[in-house]
Amino acid sequence: MESDWVRAFAARLGPVPPHVLRGIGDDVACLSSPGPLNLLWTTDSQREGIHFRWEWMTPEEVGYRLLAVNLSDVFAKGGTPFAALVALGVPPHFPEESLFAFYDGMGEASRHFFCPVVGGDISRSAGGFDAVMSLLATSVSGRFPGRDQLEPGDTLYLLGHPGMARAGYMALKSGQADKSDLQECVSVFKRPGPFPWLADLISSETAIIATMDTSDGLGQAVFALADQSGVSVCLDPPDGWLEHLRVPSEILGTDPFRMAWEGGEDYDVLLGIRSSPDETVTGKIEEKIREGRDRLIRLGKVVDQKSPDGGAAVTIIGKDGRGRTLERTGFDHT
Amino acid sequence: MESDWVRAFAARLGPVPPHVLRGIGDDVACLSSPGPLNLLWTTDSQREGIHFRWEWMTPEEVGYRLLAVNLSDVFAKGGTPFAALVALGVPPHFPEESLFAFYDGMGEASRHFFCPVVGGDISRSAGGFDAVMSLLATSVSGRFPGRDQLEPGDTLYLLGHPGMARAGYMALKSGQADKSDLQECVSVFKRPGPFPWLADLISSETAIIATMDTSDGLGQAVFALADQSGVSVCLDPPDGWLEHLRVPSEILGTDPFRMAWEGGEDYDVLLGIRSSPDETVTGKIEEKIREGRDRLIRLGKVVDQKSPDGGAAVTIIGKDGRGRTLERTGFDHT
Repeated sequence: MESDWVRAFAARLGPVPPHVLRGIGDDVACLSSPGPLNLLWTTDSQREGIHFRWEWMTPEEVGYRLLAVNLSDVFAKGGTPFAALVALGVPPHFPEESLFAFYDGMGEASRHFFCPVVGGDISRSAGGFDAVMSLLATSVSGRFPGRDQLEPGDTLYLLGHPGMARAGYMALKSGQADKSDLQECVSVFKRPGPFPWLADLISSETAIIATMDTSDGLGQAVFALADQSGVSVCLDPPDGWLEHLRVPSEILGTDPFRMAWEGGEDYDVLLGIRSSPDETVTGKIEEKIREGRDRLIRLGKVVDQKSPDGGAAVTIIGKDGRGRTLERTGFDHT
Repeated sequence: MESDWVRAFAARLGPVPPHVLRGIGDDVACLSSPGPLNLLWTTDSQREGIHFRWEWMTPEEVGYRLLAVNLSDVFAKGGTPFAALVALGVPPHFPEESLFAFYDGMGEASRHFFCPVVGGDISRSAGGFDAVMSLLATSVSGRFPGRDQLEPGDTLYLLGHPGMARAGYMALKSGQADKSDLQECVSVFKRPGPFPWLADLISSETAIIATMDTSDGLGQAVFALADQSGVSVCLDPPDGWLEHLRVPSEILGTDPFRMAWEGGEDYDVLLGIRSSPDETVTGKIEEKIREGRDRLIRLGKVVDQKSPDGGAAVTIIGKDGRGRTLERTGFDHT
């Protein structure tokens, strides 16, 4: 039984690159050394009833999403995918064809992002289906854009369309996922599109000094960078930065800013860029990103004032030119 | 909240070695290159209601066990621990002190086996508590004792005390864990003791050509090696090889052989050794292992006959000198 599954899984994942010396089918995978490169390592999960519901997502979509959300973290840190492992918790009577479909989805993402899945573990689950992935990437030695690197004067950018996944999640939860104006949000929620080209940009542009994906919400990410760097942030995003949420938020009856700020599962990327005196570096990076079809929003500046309790303060400049203090928040999966 | 936890977890895990460039506290961990060494990579889990019950185990014991069972796989393949990541699924209202205690246990194992825990992920769980670990080890390039390497003429050894963990599990399940004659089995079940010194032996002794831990049971492991190598096995273990199960099996009312053969969670290691014509190599390896306090059992020989259906056949020679065919089996966690 176990070895039949192993063969079926391996067939769905496809061929592996030469650095995978031993893949699926043994107790451990064996990989050749990444040479002089560093290793980036992350883990993230997809759990039934927490990250998804079977009424919303097919097993293929869950498999694809598992790899995509793990890749989001390493792309945001300048990593190039090296390999992934997956550990499943499978409830009794879970259909074998759903398990295979899950591997089909993971295999699709694996081929799309050039990240081989080299093994894993299957265990029974006393609860629902859950899948935990662990992903290795390589990165240039000496380049790590940490959460703690922001300094006053740095500029904060966001790559992506904040709040779209949250809108998709709300559409699914309220049973409006088939409304045509909500199709795109639903698709962003189901199939996150991390940024594979970030690795090159981050390894060559040392002015990108702090990065983080927004999987737990934009607000949570801005506070995490500010807290860990010991700085504050003043947001002054351009008019229309939430235009993509106008229609969805009307249908769903929510404030667009709240949707963007509190929403999770977005897998956008926050970038802190060290400004040069004449701003040529930030200008060059802005240009590079905009050359692609990806959307870059200049969110605001890093400042050194603190909140009255000594923690990070995050303010946003409104249309009236006045600053408003933003509260700490976080996306709570439901 | 999240960053307070991160600090509390990091304190419980202790200091990290220099190859951990970025540990707990960012979205990904960053490790320096293992140089010319290969990487071995495995994942294994501990799930409430499947691998343990809270009535049986403390959170410290579960944390310790999680690292120990992952190390078992890499030690059996000749790996030296490099780093570990942990992904938790935590039910609502799970006590914070239990979470910290889990990290205390993981920290104890981490220091004992010199394996730094460099990060992880915490998610809510809609079911019980579960912990999935992913573990990296280094190994000498070119040395990988796979499951598929056995050839007729090889000798099969077992390192450990088969069935002890199964006896401990049965003692816990039947409420007899406090009987003094069952204390040792219960301790083996709760606190597996993988073999850190195996890495050196396996990297230097190329005659060790196939290895596997017996976490799913001795029977399952023997069949897995035989199946994947395309060979059969004739077992002829020495008298008294199950003496350690005599008293526990009487108390628990089970056959010692069944306990050893079907029992899982043992974390003993099966070793296939390529015999030299005069058997000096196997003799030398036997001696090296017996120099330590670990127990090595000469289980039997690899043969080339097949079962009538063409699959691997496993037979055992009884006291009457006659062979008996063994059925396929596997440990099913309960």
